[in-house]
Amino acid sequence: MTTATYTVTGMTCGHCVSSVKEEVGEVAGVTGVDVDLATGLLTVQSEAPIEPARIVAAVEEAGYTVADQP
Amino acid sequence: MTTATYTVTGMTCGHCVSSVKEEVGEVAGVTGVDVDLATGLLTVQSEAPIEPARIVAAVEEAGYTVADQP
Repeated sequence: MTTATYTVTGMTCGHCVSSVKEEVGEVAGVTGVDVDLATGLLTVQSEAPIEPARIVAAVEEAGYTVADQP
Repeated sequence: MTTATYTVTGMTCGHCVSSVKEEVGEVAGVTGVDVDLATGLLTVQSEAPIEPARIVAAVEEAGYTVADQP
């Protein structure tokens, strides 16, 4: 299993967290998603490594920005 | 038609606005709801006056607080 972490900016509440979780969770290969609102830390688990650009695109689709990626 | 205004605190983003609109819109008698995120102004339209406590309860159900009511 692979774990990758990203930093997301722009989330202000639990609804924002849910939106990011939902979009990232829909990326093919993703098996687990965790988001910490206070720090913006997004943790993505998958069986095989996922191209970071796909995660960044999902975060942007949700309406937020990735400030730091693998 | 009656229009009543409330001030809601705690909303941080468009998702919060949507939650308040949804809950208040479900109150019996409500025919229109408008929420301004920047000011927290909640405008409720109805055919007949609605007991403010019912609107306050709906806002709290959505997870926010009413700071000012009719």
